[in-house]
Amino acid sequence: MTTKERILLRSLELFNEKGERHITTNHVAADLSISPGNLYYHYRSKQAIIYEIFTHYERLVEHYLQLPDRALSVQDEFDYLDSVFDGLWSYRFLHRDLYHYLDADPRLKTEYSQFTSRCLDRLEEIISSLEQSGILAFHPHSGSGNGASAAALKRTLALNVWLVVTNWMSFLVSSVEVAGGTLSIRHMKSGIHQALAIQEPYVTEAFAEEVARLASDYPDYRSLGSGTSKIVSRKAQASL
Amino acid sequence: MTTKERILLRSLELFNEKGERHITTNHVAADLSISPGNLYYHYRSKQAIIYEIFTHYERLVEHYLQLPDRALSVQDEFDYLDSVFDGLWSYRFLHRDLYHYLDADPRLKTEYSQFTSRCLDRLEEIISSLEQSGILAFHPHSGSGNGASAAALKRTLALNVWLVVTNWMSFLVSSVEVAGGTLSIRHMKSGIHQALAIQEPYVTEAFAEEVARLASDYPDYRSLGSGTSKIVSRKAQASL
Repeated sequence: MTTKERILLRSLELFNEKGERHITTNHVAADLSISPGNLYYHYRSKQAIIYEIFTHYERLVEHYLQLPDRALSVQDEFDYLDSVFDGLWSYRFLHRDLYHYLDADPRLKTEYSQFTSRCLDRLEEIISSLEQSGILAFHPHSGSGNGASAAALKRTLALNVWLVVTNWMSFLVSSVEVAGGTLSIRHMKSGIHQALAIQEPYVTEAFAEEVARLASDYPDYRSLGSGTSKIVSRKAQASL
Repeated sequence: MTTKERILLRSLELFNEKGERHITTNHVAADLSISPGNLYYHYRSKQAIIYEIFTHYERLVEHYLQLPDRALSVQDEFDYLDSVFDGLWSYRFLHRDLYHYLDADPRLKTEYSQFTSRCLDRLEEIISSLEQSGILAFHPHSGSGNGASAAALKRTLALNVWLVVTNWMSFLVSSVEVAGGTLSIRHMKSGIHQALAIQEPYVTEAFAEEVARLASDYPDYRSLGSGTSKIVSRKAQASL
Protein backbone atom coordinates (compact mmCIF):
# COMPACT_ATOMS: atom_id res chain seq x y z
CA MET A 1 0.00 0.00 0.00
CA THR A 2 1.37 3.40 -0.95
CA THR A 3 1.68 6.22 1.57
CA LYS A 4 -1.14 8.01 -0.22
CA GLU A 5 -3.42 5.00 0.17
CA ARG A 6 -2.45 4.63 3.82
CA ILE A 7 -3.34 8.28 4.47
CA LEU A 8 -6.73 7.83 2.86
CA LEU A 9 -7.58 4.60 4.64
CA ARG A 10 -6.46 5.80 8.07
CA SER A 11 -8.28 9.11 7.64
CA LEU A 12 -11.48 7.24 6.87
CA GLU A 13 -11.06 5.04 9.94
CA LEU A 14 -10.35 8.00 12.21
CA PHE A 15 -13.21 10.08 10.79
CA ASN A 16 -15.62 7.18 11.32
CA GLU A 17 -14.41 6.38 14.82
CA LYS A 18 -13.80 9.80 16.30
CA GLY A 19 -15.80 12.17 14.10
CA GLU A 20 -14.29 14.18 11.28
CA ARG A 21 -14.51 17.43 13.28
CA HIS A 22 -12.10 16.10 15.87
CA ILE A 23 -9.45 14.89 13.45
CA THR A 24 -6.91 17.18 11.81
CA THR A 25 -4.39 16.26 9.12
CA ASN A 26 -1.76 16.47 11.88
CA HIS A 27 -3.58 13.76 13.82
CA VAL A 28 -3.57 11.53 10.76
CA ALA A 29 0.12 12.14 10.13
CA ALA A 30 1.03 11.43 13.76
CA ASP A 31 -1.08 8.28 13.74
CA LEU A 32 0.77 7.03 10.66
CA SER A 33 4.16 8.16 12.01
CA ILE A 34 4.79 10.33 8.97
CA SER A 35 5.64 14.02 8.95
CA PRO A 36 2.94 16.66 8.34
CA GLY A 37 5.01 17.68 5.32
CA ASN A 38 4.84 14.19 3.89
CA LEU A 39 1.05 14.17 4.30
CA TYR A 40 0.84 17.63 2.76
CA TYR A 41 2.81 16.37 -0.25
CA HIS A 42 -0.07 13.96 -0.98
CA TYR A 43 -3.06 16.00 0.23
CA ARG A 44 -3.05 19.78 0.52
CA SER A 45 -5.92 19.86 3.02
CA LYS A 46 -8.41 17.76 4.95
CA GLN A 47 -10.99 18.82 2.38
CA ALA A 48 -8.90 17.19 -0.34
CA ILE A 49 -8.88 13.94 1.67
CA ILE A 50 -12.64 14.10 2.19
CA TYR A 51 -13.16 14.72 -1.50
CA GLU A 52 -11.12 11.66 -2.44
CA ILE A 53 -12.90 9.50 0.15
CA PHE A 54 -16.16 10.62 -1.42
CA THR A 55 -15.06 9.50 -4.86
CA HIS A 56 -14.21 6.06 -3.44
CA TYR A 57 -17.59 5.90 -1.72
CA GLU A 58 -19.38 6.82 -4.92
CA ARG A 59 -17.52 4.20 -6.93
CA LEU A 60 -18.27 1.54 -4.29
CA VAL A 61 -22.01 2.30 -4.25
CA GLU A 62 -22.19 2.39 -8.04
CA HIS A 63 -20.35 -0.93 -8.12
CA TYR A 64 -22.89 -2.39 -5.67
CA LEU A 65 -25.81 -1.14 -7.77
CA GLN A 66 -24.68 -2.71 -11.06
CA LEU A 67 -27.28 -4.87 -12.79
CA PRO A 68 -26.37 -8.37 -13.95
CA ASP A 69 -27.15 -9.66 -17.44
CA ARG A 70 -30.14 -11.66 -16.22
CA ALA A 71 -33.45 -11.16 -14.48
CA LEU A 72 -33.12 -10.32 -10.78
CA SER A 73 -34.08 -12.73 -8.04
CA VAL A 74 -35.45 -12.00 -4.57
CA GLN A 75 -32.02 -12.77 -3.15
CA ASP A 76 -30.54 -10.13 -5.45
CA GLU A 77 -32.80 -7.47 -3.95
CA PHE A 78 -31.60 -8.36 -0.46
CA ASP A 79 -28.00 -8.41 -1.62
CA TYR A 80 -28.44 -4.90 -3.00
CA LEU A 81 -29.84 -3.58 0.26
CA ASP A 82 -27.26 -5.38 2.35
CA SER A 83 -24.39 -4.12 0.22
CA VAL A 84 -25.57 -0.52 0.23
CA PHE A 85 -25.91 -0.54 4.02
CA ASP A 86 -22.40 -2.01 4.27
CA GLY A 87 -21.18 0.86 2.12
CA LEU A 88 -23.01 3.42 4.24
CA TRP A 89 -21.49 1.88 7.36
CA SER A 90 -17.94 1.82 5.99
CA TYR A 91 -18.18 5.52 5.10
CA ARG A 92 -20.54 6.53 7.87
CA PHE A 93 -18.87 9.82 8.77
CA LEU A 94 -19.90 11.20 5.36
CA HIS A 95 -23.63 11.10 5.97
CA ARG A 96 -23.46 12.58 9.43
CA ASP A 97 -22.32 15.93 8.06
CA LEU A 98 -23.11 15.54 4.39
CA TYR A 99 -24.60 18.99 3.89
CA HIS A 100 -21.66 20.61 5.57
CA TYR A 101 -19.24 18.91 3.17
CA LEU A 102 -21.36 19.84 0.17
CA ASP A 103 -21.56 23.46 1.32
CA ALA A 104 -17.80 23.62 1.78
CA ASP A 105 -16.85 22.17 -1.60
CA PRO A 106 -18.76 23.24 -4.74
CA ARG A 107 -17.05 20.54 -6.82
CA LEU A 108 -18.28 17.91 -4.37
CA LYS A 109 -21.78 19.38 -4.43
CA THR A 110 -21.98 19.12 -8.21
CA GLU A 111 -20.62 15.59 -8.23
CA TYR A 112 -22.84 14.45 -5.38
CA SER A 113 -25.89 15.75 -7.19
CA GLN A 114 -24.88 13.80 -10.31
CA PHE A 115 -24.13 10.72 -8.20
CA THR A 116 -27.60 10.88 -6.63
CA SER A 117 -29.16 11.17 -10.05
CA ARG A 118 -27.28 8.12 -11.33
CA CYS A 119 -28.20 6.10 -8.22
CA LEU A 120 -31.88 6.97 -8.63
CA ASP A 121 -31.74 5.84 -12.25
CA ARG A 122 -30.11 2.59 -11.13
CA LEU A 123 -32.74 2.05 -8.42
CA GLU A 124 -35.47 2.50 -11.00
CA GLU A 125 -33.79 -0.08 -13.21
CA ILE A 126 -33.54 -2.51 -10.30
CA ILE A 127 -37.24 -2.02 -9.51
CA SER A 128 -38.12 -2.54 -13.18
CA SER A 129 -36.02 -5.68 -13.33
CA LEU A 130 -37.75 -7.06 -10.23
CA GLU A 131 -41.03 -6.30 -11.96
CA GLN A 132 -39.87 -8.21 -15.06
CA SER A 133 -39.03 -11.17 -12.82
CA GLY A 134 -42.60 -11.09 -11.54
CA ILE A 135 -41.46 -10.24 -7.99
CA LEU A 136 -42.98 -6.76 -7.94
CA ALA A 137 -46.13 -5.58 -9.72
CA PHE A 138 -47.38 -2.02 -10.21
CA HIS A 139 -51.03 -1.46 -10.81
CA PRO A 140 -51.95 2.18 -10.31
CA HIS A 141 -54.99 2.33 -8.04
CA SER A 142 -58.00 1.34 -10.11
CA GLY A 143 -60.49 4.17 -10.11
CA SER A 144 -57.92 6.63 -8.85
CA GLY A 145 -58.26 8.65 -12.03
CA ASN A 146 -55.11 10.65 -11.30
CA GLY A 147 -53.34 9.25 -14.30
CA ALA A 148 -50.24 8.28 -12.34
CA SER A 149 -48.49 5.84 -14.61
CA ALA A 150 -46.65 2.79 -13.37
CA ALA A 151 -43.43 4.47 -14.53
CA ALA A 152 -44.09 7.53 -12.38
CA LEU A 153 -44.93 5.29 -9.46
CA LYS A 154 -41.62 3.44 -9.78
CA ARG A 155 -39.70 6.72 -9.92
CA THR A 156 -41.38 7.96 -6.76
CA LEU A 157 -40.79 4.62 -5.07
CA ALA A 158 -37.08 4.62 -5.97
CA LEU A 159 -36.68 8.09 -4.46
CA ASN A 160 -38.47 7.12 -1.25
CA VAL A 161 -36.19 4.11 -0.84
CA TRP A 162 -33.19 6.40 -1.41
CA LEU A 163 -34.43 8.94 1.18
CA VAL A 164 -35.01 6.28 3.80
CA VAL A 165 -31.72 4.47 3.20
CA THR A 166 -29.42 7.51 3.05
CA ASN A 167 -30.99 9.19 6.09
CA TRP A 168 -31.26 6.15 8.29
CA MET A 169 -27.96 6.63 10.11
CA SER A 170 -28.76 10.26 10.90
CA PHE A 171 -32.14 9.25 12.26
CA LEU A 172 -30.55 6.71 14.59
CA VAL A 173 -27.90 9.17 15.75
CA SER A 174 -30.32 12.05 16.33
CA SER A 175 -33.37 10.32 17.68
CA VAL A 176 -32.66 6.89 19.09
CA GLU A 177 -31.11 5.96 22.40
CA VAL A 178 -28.93 3.06 21.40
CA ALA A 179 -28.45 0.46 24.13
CA GLY A 180 -24.80 0.58 25.14
CA GLY A 181 -24.40 3.97 23.51
CA THR A 182 -22.43 2.80 20.52
CA LEU A 183 -24.02 2.48 17.14
CA SER A 184 -23.20 -0.79 15.42
CA ILE A 185 -23.77 -2.20 11.99
CA ARG A 186 -26.63 -4.21 13.54
CA HIS A 187 -28.47 -0.97 14.23
CA MET A 188 -27.53 0.37 10.84
CA LYS A 189 -28.99 -2.62 9.02
CA SER A 190 -32.33 -2.30 10.78
CA GLY A 191 -32.84 0.35 8.10
CA ILE A 192 -33.33 -2.53 5.66
CA HIS A 193 -36.60 -3.28 7.48
CA GLN A 194 -37.74 0.27 6.71
CA ALA A 195 -36.68 0.15 3.06
CA LEU A 196 -38.42 -3.18 2.53
CA ALA A 197 -41.67 -1.80 3.95
CA ILE A 198 -41.85 0.72 1.09
CA GLN A 199 -41.72 -2.06 -1.50
CA GLU A 200 -43.80 -4.60 0.42
CA PRO A 201 -47.22 -3.60 -1.00
CA TYR A 202 -45.93 -4.27 -4.51
CA VAL A 203 -44.61 -7.79 -3.86
CA THR A 204 -46.62 -10.33 -5.82
CA GLU A 205 -48.42 -13.24 -4.16
CA ALA A 206 -46.06 -15.72 -5.81
CA PHE A 207 -42.97 -14.26 -4.12
CA ALA A 208 -44.47 -13.02 -0.85
CA GLU A 209 -43.30 -15.98 1.19
CA GLU A 210 -39.72 -15.85 -0.07
CA VAL A 211 -39.52 -12.08 0.56
CA ALA A 212 -40.94 -12.49 4.07
CA ARG A 213 -38.49 -15.26 4.89
CA LEU A 214 -35.45 -13.22 3.84
CA ALA A 215 -36.88 -10.07 5.45
CA SER A 216 -37.10 -11.78 8.83
CA ASP A 217 -33.31 -11.39 9.15
CA TYR A 218 -33.76 -7.61 9.36
CA PRO A 219 -35.87 -6.72 12.40
CA ASP A 220 -37.43 -3.40 13.28
CA TYR A 221 -34.87 -1.12 14.98
CA ARG A 222 -37.11 -0.98 18.06
CA SER A 223 -36.55 -4.65 18.66
CA LEU A 224 -32.78 -4.24 18.80
CA GLY A 225 -30.91 -3.95 22.06
CA SER A 226 -32.32 -7.11 23.57
CA GLY A 227 -31.02 -10.54 22.68
CA THR A 228 -28.96 -11.29 19.64
CA SER A 229 -29.71 -10.37 16.09
CA LYS A 230 -29.20 -12.39 13.00
CA ILE A 231 -27.81 -9.36 11.24
CA VAL A 232 -24.20 -9.89 10.35
CA SER A 233 -21.97 -7.89 8.12
CA ARG A 234 -20.61 -9.49 5.03
CA LYS A 235 -18.72 -6.52 3.73
CA ALA A 236 -18.35 -4.21 6.71
CA GLN A 237 -14.63 -4.85 6.88
CA ALA A 238 -14.13 -4.02 3.24
CA SER A 239 -13.11 -0.46 2.81
CA LEU A 240 -11.18 1.40 0.17
CA MET B 1 -43.79 42.65 20.62
CA THR B 2 -41.09 42.60 23.28
CA THR B 3 -37.43 43.07 22.41
CA LYS B 4 -36.87 39.41 23.25
CA GLU B 5 -39.55 38.33 20.77
CA ARG B 6 -38.17 40.67 18.11
CA ILE B 7 -34.69 39.14 18.54
CA LEU B 8 -36.07 35.66 18.13
CA LEU B 9 -38.22 36.44 15.11
CA ARG B 10 -35.51 38.40 13.29
CA SER B 11 -32.89 35.72 14.04
CA LEU B 12 -35.16 33.10 12.51
CA GLU B 13 -35.70 35.22 9.41
CA LEU B 14 -31.98 35.91 8.99
CA PHE B 15 -30.99 32.27 9.60
CA ASN B 16 -33.53 31.12 7.01
CA GLU B 17 -32.55 33.72 4.42
CA LYS B 18 -28.78 33.90 4.78
CA GLY B 19 -27.85 30.67 6.54
CA GLU B 20 -27.22 30.40 10.26
CA ARG B 21 -23.45 30.09 9.76
CA HIS B 22 -23.26 33.56 8.26
CA ILE B 23 -25.24 35.34 10.97
CA THR B 24 -23.74 36.36 14.31
CA THR B 25 -25.59 37.83 17.27
CA ASN B 26 -23.96 41.15 16.34
CA HIS B 27 -25.61 40.96 12.91
CA VAL B 28 -28.98 40.42 14.56
CA ALA B 29 -28.44 43.31 17.00
CA ALA B 30 -27.36 45.67 14.20
CA ASP B 31 -30.32 44.65 12.09
CA LEU B 32 -32.70 45.45 14.95
CA SER B 33 -30.82 48.66 15.83
CA ILE B 34 -30.22 47.50 19.37
CA SER B 35 -26.86 47.28 21.16
CA PRO B 36 -25.01 43.95 21.41
CA GLY B 37 -25.30 44.37 25.18
CA ASN B 38 -29.07 44.60 24.95
CA LEU B 39 -29.21 41.41 22.88
CA TYR B 40 -26.82 39.71 25.30
CA TYR B 41 -29.15 40.67 28.17
CA HIS B 42 -31.85 38.49 26.56
CA TYR B 43 -29.71 35.74 24.98
CA ARG B 44 -26.22 34.85 26.15
CA SER B 45 -25.27 33.21 22.85
CA LYS B 46 -26.45 32.28 19.38
CA GLN B 47 -26.84 28.75 20.68
CA ALA B 48 -29.39 30.03 23.22
CA ILE B 49 -31.35 31.66 20.40
CA ILE B 50 -31.26 28.48 18.33
CA TYR B 51 -32.42 26.46 21.31
CA GLU B 52 -35.41 28.73 21.86
CA ILE B 53 -36.30 28.72 18.15
CA PHE B 54 -36.26 24.93 18.34
CA THR B 55 -38.75 24.91 21.22
CA HIS B 56 -41.08 27.13 19.17
CA TYR B 57 -40.71 24.82 16.19
CA GLU B 58 -41.48 21.78 18.30
CA ARG B 59 -44.58 23.39 19.80
CA LEU B 60 -45.78 24.41 16.33
CA VAL B 61 -45.38 20.91 14.87
CA GLU B 62 -47.04 19.30 17.88
CA HIS B 63 -49.87 21.79 17.55
CA TYR B 64 -50.26 20.85 13.88
CA LEU B 65 -50.33 17.14 14.71
CA GLN B 66 -53.13 17.32 17.29
CA LEU B 67 -56.04 14.96 16.70
CA PRO B 68 -59.59 16.26 16.75
CA ASP B 69 -62.39 14.60 18.76
CA ARG B 70 -63.82 12.95 15.66
CA ALA B 71 -62.84 10.54 12.93
CA LEU B 72 -60.40 11.98 10.40
CA SER B 73 -61.39 12.82 6.84
CA VAL B 74 -59.27 12.69 3.68
CA GLN B 75 -59.05 16.48 3.79
CA ASP B 76 -57.62 16.21 7.32
CA GLU B 77 -54.75 14.06 6.07
CA PHE B 78 -53.88 16.67 3.45
CA ASP B 79 -54.16 19.45 6.02
CA TYR B 80 -51.71 17.59 8.25
CA LEU B 81 -49.16 17.22 5.47
CA ASP B 82 -49.63 20.78 4.26
CA SER B 83 -49.25 22.20 7.78
CA VAL B 84 -46.15 20.19 8.58
CA PHE B 85 -44.47 21.30 5.34
CA ASP B 86 -45.39 24.91 6.18
CA GLY B 87 -43.72 24.42 9.55
CA LEU B 88 -40.63 22.89 7.97
CA TRP B 89 -40.45 25.82 5.57
CA SER B 90 -40.86 28.49 8.27
CA TYR B 91 -38.00 26.94 10.26
CA ARG B 92 -36.04 25.62 7.33
CA PHE B 93 -32.56 26.57 8.58
CA LEU B 94 -32.97 24.00 11.38
CA HIS B 95 -33.09 20.96 9.16
CA ARG B 96 -30.19 22.02 6.99
CA ASP B 97 -27.73 21.61 9.86
CA LEU B 98 -29.79 19.62 12.31
CA TYR B 99 -27.06 17.21 13.33
CA HIS B 100 -24.63 20.01 13.93
CA TYR B 101 -27.05 21.71 16.33
CA LEU B 102 -27.75 18.45 18.13
CA ASP B 103 -24.03 17.74 18.47
CA ALA B 104 -23.38 21.19 19.86
CA ASP B 105 -26.13 21.15 22.50
CA PRO B 106 -26.76 17.99 24.57
CA ARG B 107 -29.97 19.46 26.01
CA LEU B 108 -31.28 19.98 22.50
CA LYS B 109 -30.27 16.46 21.50
CA THR B 110 -32.25 14.93 24.35
CA GLU B 111 -35.29 17.08 23.69
CA TYR B 112 -35.17 16.48 19.95
CA SER B 113 -35.07 12.74 20.50
CA GLN B 114 -38.14 13.00 22.76
CA PHE B 115 -39.86 15.29 20.26
CA THR B 116 -39.27 12.75 17.45
CA SER B 117 -40.68 10.00 19.61
CA ARG B 118 -43.84 12.02 20.37
CA CYS B 119 -44.27 12.90 16.68
CA LEU B 120 -43.97 9.26 15.65
CA ASP B 121 -46.63 8.33 18.23
CA ARG B 122 -48.86 11.06 16.85
CA LEU B 123 -48.32 9.90 13.27
CA GLU B 124 -49.30 6.38 14.28
CA GLU B 125 -52.48 7.74 15.87
CA ILE B 126 -53.30 9.70 12.72
CA ILE B 127 -52.79 6.59 10.59
CA SER B 128 -54.97 4.56 12.95
CA SER B 129 -57.68 7.21 12.87
CA LEU B 130 -57.61 7.21 9.05
CA GLU B 131 -57.99 3.44 9.26
CA GLN B 132 -61.00 3.82 11.57
CA SER B 133 -62.55 6.19 9.04
CA GLY B 134 -62.16 3.50 6.41
CA ILE B 135 -59.72 5.62 4.38
CA LEU B 136 -56.73 3.33 4.94
CA ALA B 137 -56.72 -0.43 5.39
CA PHE B 138 -53.89 -2.68 6.53
CA HIS B 139 -53.95 -6.31 5.59
CA PRO B 140 -50.57 -7.91 6.15
CA HIS B 141 -49.65 -9.79 3.00
CA SER B 142 -51.70 -12.96 2.92
CA GLY B 143 -49.43 -15.94 2.89
CA SER B 144 -46.43 -13.89 3.94
CA GLY B 145 -46.13 -15.86 7.14
CA ASN B 146 -43.74 -13.35 8.68
CA GLY B 147 -46.20 -12.52 11.42
CA ALA B 148 -45.94 -8.79 10.86
CA SER B 149 -48.99 -7.40 12.56
CA ALA B 150 -51.00 -4.50 11.22
CA ALA B 151 -49.78 -2.52 14.25
CA ALA B 152 -46.12 -3.12 13.36
CA LEU B 153 -46.86 -2.18 9.76
CA LYS B 154 -48.40 1.14 10.84
CA ARG B 155 -45.39 1.91 13.04
CA THR B 156 -42.99 1.26 10.19
CA LEU B 157 -45.15 3.32 7.85
CA ALA B 158 -45.26 6.27 10.26
CA LEU B 159 -41.48 6.26 10.52
CA ASN B 160 -41.02 6.13 6.75
CA VAL B 161 -43.33 9.12 6.33
CA TRP B 162 -41.31 10.95 9.00
CA LEU B 163 -37.99 10.13 7.30
CA VAL B 164 -39.21 11.31 3.90
CA VAL B 165 -40.83 14.50 5.22
CA THR B 166 -38.02 15.65 7.52
CA ASN B 167 -35.27 14.94 4.97
CA TRP B 168 -37.01 16.35 1.93
CA MET B 169 -35.49 19.83 2.16
CA SER B 170 -31.97 18.44 2.50
CA PHE B 171 -32.50 16.22 -0.52
CA LEU B 172 -33.59 19.19 -2.63
CA VAL B 173 -30.67 21.30 -1.44
CA SER B 174 -28.04 18.60 -1.93
CA SER B 175 -29.21 16.86 -5.05
CA VAL B 176 -31.56 18.94 -7.15
CA GLU B 177 -30.76 21.79 -9.47
CA VAL B 178 -33.63 24.15 -8.76
CA ALA B 179 -34.65 26.30 -11.72
CA GLY B 180 -33.81 29.87 -10.82
CA GLY B 181 -31.51 28.71 -8.06
CA THR B 182 -33.76 29.66 -5.18
CA LEU B 183 -35.70 27.07 -3.30
CA SER B 184 -39.32 28.04 -2.76
CA ILE B 185 -42.17 26.63 -0.75
CA ARG B 186 -43.47 25.21 -4.07
CA HIS B 187 -40.43 22.97 -4.25
CA MET B 188 -40.70 22.17 -0.57
CA LYS B 189 -44.28 21.00 -0.89
CA SER B 190 -43.46 18.61 -3.72
CA GLY B 191 -42.37 16.44 -0.78
CA ILE B 192 -46.06 15.85 -0.11
CA HIS B 193 -46.15 13.85 -3.35
CA GLN B 194 -43.44 11.60 -1.92
CA ALA B 195 -45.10 11.20 1.47
CA LEU B 196 -48.44 10.36 -0.12
CA ALA B 197 -46.83 7.63 -2.24
CA ILE B 198 -45.91 5.72 0.93
CA GLN B 199 -49.53 5.59 2.05
CA GLU B 200 -51.07 5.17 -1.40
CA PRO B 201 -51.10 1.34 -1.44
CA TYR B 202 -53.20 1.35 1.74
CA VAL B 203 -55.92 3.71 0.50
CA THR B 204 -59.24 1.87 0.23
CA GLU B 205 -61.19 1.70 -3.01
CA ALA B 206 -63.97 3.82 -1.51
CA PHE B 207 -61.67 6.80 -0.93
CA ALA B 208 -59.20 6.36 -3.81
CA GLU B 209 -60.83 8.95 -6.02
CA GLU B 210 -60.98 11.64 -3.32
CA VAL B 211 -57.34 11.04 -2.34
CA ALA B 212 -56.22 11.20 -5.98
CA ARG B 213 -58.14 14.42 -6.56
CA LEU B 214 -56.55 16.18 -3.57
CA ALA B 215 -53.13 14.67 -4.36
CA SER B 216 -53.15 16.20 -7.84
CA ASP B 217 -52.34 19.58 -6.23
CA TYR B 218 -48.93 18.22 -5.21
CA PRO B 219 -46.92 17.26 -8.28
CA ASP B 220 -43.70 15.31 -8.47
CA TYR B 221 -40.71 17.59 -7.84
CA ARG B 222 -39.36 16.72 -11.28
CA SER B 223 -42.32 18.44 -12.90
CA LEU B 224 -41.61 21.74 -11.14
CA GLY B 225 -39.75 24.54 -12.81
CA SER B 226 -42.01 24.72 -15.82
CA GLY B 227 -45.37 26.44 -15.77
CA THR B 228 -47.27 27.35 -12.68
CA SER B 229 -48.11 25.11 -9.80
CA LYS B 230 -51.26 24.98 -7.79
CA ILE B 231 -49.24 24.72 -4.61
CA VAL B 232 -49.80 27.76 -2.47
CA SER B 233 -48.81 28.35 1.11
CA ARG B 234 -51.52 28.84 3.64
CA LYS B 235 -49.33 29.25 6.66
CA ALA B 236 -45.90 30.03 5.27
CA GLN B 237 -46.03 33.57 6.55
CA ALA B 238 -46.94 32.47 10.06
CA SER B 239 -43.90 32.22 12.21
CA LEU B 240 -43.30 32.47 15.94
